[in-house]
Amino acid sequence: MKNRILKTAQNAKTASRKLALITRKTKDKALISMAGALIEGRSAILKANQKDLAAAKKFGLSMALIDRLRLDDKRIAAMADSLKAIAGLDEVIGSVIESWSVKNGLIIRKVSVPIGVIGIIYESRPNVTSDCAGLCLKSGNSVILRGGKEAFNSNTAIFKILEKTASNCGIPKGAINMIATTDRNAVKALLQLNNLIDLVMPRGGEGLIREVTRVSRIPVIKHYKGVCHVYVDKSADLKMAEEVCFNAKVQRPGVCNAMETMLVHKDVAKQFLPRMIKKFEGAGVKIRGLKSAEAIDWSTEYLDLILAVKIVDSLEAAVEHINKYGSMHSDAIIAKNPRAAQIFLDGVDSACVYTNASTRFTDGGEFGFGAEIGISTEKLHARGPMALKELTTYKYHIIGSGQIRK
Amino acid sequence: MKNRILKTAQNAKTASRKLALITRKTKDKALISMAGALIEGRSAILKANQKDLAAAKKFGLSMALIDRLRLDDKRIAAMADSLKAIAGLDEVIGSVIESWSVKNGLIIRKVSVPIGVIGIIYESRPNVTSDCAGLCLKSGNSVILRGGKEAFNSNTAIFKILEKTASNCGIPKGAINMIATTDRNAVKALLQLNNLIDLVMPRGGEGLIREVTRVSRIPVIKHYKGVCHVYVDKSADLKMAEEVCFNAKVQRPGVCNAMETMLVHKDVAKQFLPRMIKKFEGAGVKIRGLKSAEAIDWSTEYLDLILAVKIVDSLEAAVEHINKYGSMHSDAIIAKNPRAAQIFLDGVDSACVYTNASTRFTDGGEFGFGAEIGISTEKLHARGPMALKELTTYKYHIIGSGQIRK
Repeated sequence: MKNRILKTAQNAKTASRKLALITRKTKDKALISMAGALIEGRSAILKANQKDLAAAKKFGLSMALIDRLRLDDKRIAAMADSLKAIAGLDEVIGSVIESWSVKNGLIIRKVSVPIGVIGIIYESRPNVTSDCAGLCLKSGNSVILRGGKEAFNSNTAIFKILEKTASNCGIPKGAINMIATTDRNAVKALLQLNNLIDLVMPRGGEGLIREVTRVSRIPVIKHYKGVCHVYVDKSADLKMAEEVCFNAKVQRPGVCNAMETMLVHKDVAKQFLPRMIKKFEGAGVKIRGLKSAEAIDWSTEYLDLILAVKIVDSLEAAVEHINKYGSMHSDAIIAKNPRAAQIFLDGVDSACVYTNASTRFTDGGEFGFGAEIGISTEKLHARGPMALKELTTYKYHIIGSGQIRK
Repeated sequence: MKNRILKTAQNAKTASRKLALITRKTKDKALISMAGALIEGRSAILKANQKDLAAAKKFGLSMALIDRLRLDDKRIAAMADSLKAIAGLDEVIGSVIESWSVKNGLIIRKVSVPIGVIGIIYESRPNVTSDCAGLCLKSGNSVILRGGKEAFNSNTAIFKILEKTASNCGIPKGAINMIATTDRNAVKALLQLNNLIDLVMPRGGEGLIREVTRVSRIPVIKHYKGVCHVYVDKSADLKMAEEVCFNAKVQRPGVCNAMETMLVHKDVAKQFLPRMIKKFEGAGVKIRGLKSAEAIDWSTEYLDLILAVKIVDSLEAAVEHINKYGSMHSDAIIAKNPRAAQIFLDGVDSACVYTNASTRFTDGGEFGFGAEIGISTEKLHARGPMALKELTTYKYHIIGSGQIRK
């Protein structure tokens, strides 16, 4: 098994060197063909998905997870549409990011290039298979996919169609790979191959992500969780605060950019909180933390209709609370005072800091990236929503005319 | 000991949040004062250095290492000059890298910010202490320094002067730190603190770097070694090839950007090699690999007047050799044919790829960065020479007027 994984990674590395030189036209044509092939092959995909659904109860999957696993014609069409959309995005490879010359006449060009080989380790939703294959291909990276056992048959069916179609369209063999086993040791073996794989992105629950981070010798970009805050400043437009806070908590509570803690300045708490809490309770939101006696873990990601609420003495106390308990994901201030807003923007050490807007906008699509491969709460390489540009690195081309160092 | 290191890292994190907001003026004034304080305090530094030199024989240090360890008035003046030069460099924090607005009116700004807390683990030369303290301060990052035991007294004396002066100039306490123990377990303890330290940069021999990479839970940026190549194409100006190859090997053989392997196209080998090898041998360079019977490890970094030479059948074979045996550091082609040069630039998967110039230019100073904190052969975050900009990350400021997600 180890040998097979090593071989896969070696092939991916070899392919990545060829893939880096493939033209945009070839990549885009392949992506569009892959979209078509998913539609044409949908009966095979649905058949495989039926197998996974039949096994789902055996794995003890919740109804919500079974729903995420389920494919139908509409969902397959959405996967195909995503691939077509990726084809339509701008090329991110080969552009000159900066260029300058130095005294001795050397011309130095910083050029965007693919990272190389990217491993994606993910759970549940089969559309991740086609999304990641598409984004990696467009950005010139080889990909090694490792989905969850729950979606094994669906993922394999999708992968086979994509891989075959890509090869037929001139994409190097080995550019798109899947670890076709549910053996857990396969992931461990994969994560040791830091000479062949350049980046690993785990996508799934906190447990998966912590385990990958612990075991991996390969650089990992991830976010563990999203403990996002909205702080209602004393200068806030309270009507706006009500709408934004309600949206940040209720519109889709199960996602990482939903609000988990609401902080309210003490000067507006009396005026703001009763109405706000009534509105929340009307939507089924349970409030935690307000009764000071109650012990509460401010670092909890509820992913549910539960909200922690805290009254703070000052803007500075709000910033400090967020830096202490938050997850460096997305946090917002509602304030009319521009100085207060600026102090919050500068002081909160998170990937995305908002003034007067819902934290729910932290998303590659909402940012206008046209796609998203994940969100990073790391500080190195990429922060916040990650799309095509975040799947590139750079190299220097240095053009000389015989220069030697004195 | 573990507790003291945890406390140091916590203080560094707290300080980093304040340091991120300090103005350029304050940072530059502190750097200039620190430069002055080194000169004023030179007798204390030299006294500490004498202790290290006296102990050096006990550690069995070579004459070359003892020379690197030795300080004198001139070397202290050079350290001070470096700090002043850093003060004069452009501010890298707070600039808007990109800015755009999306349909719903949100304004998104990608802003450059410090990384946070940076750990530097290094060997031998005491000037690394002041260089790294200066570069981290200028880029708004807290630094935790851990030098080698050989330079313990010198490093501590330099650190004390810098730390005290910085504090007196309005730099937050905890911005500049040193692990003031030679206990090896201290490094291990430090490398577990991934919640407090954002980046570790090891600087020193391959052994140190491999050990840090193995143990660290914190992201590491490093280069193991520099196995750099010059490839003499069949279209090369052979006079230029001779000068560049000689410079790349001989001008300073003990550094990472010196050539270790010379590749020569078979069509010009007969014409080029005899003269070239005579010139090398005249400078005391030992040639390896040319006699095909001889076994050779093409991945060796000699750091000495030793050169591996290989005749290759084609440009493509040269690119393949470099990608197989090289260290992704710096590689050059000598060629008049622009197509050959382009194939080399695109095909060689290294941080710095040269046409018609010596690999010895891979250096922050030579690139015009005004400084260097290290060279990265990583693909994530930073590649090639690293200076101030590479010590920054970014965050998103998102400016709204009440936007909620539909």
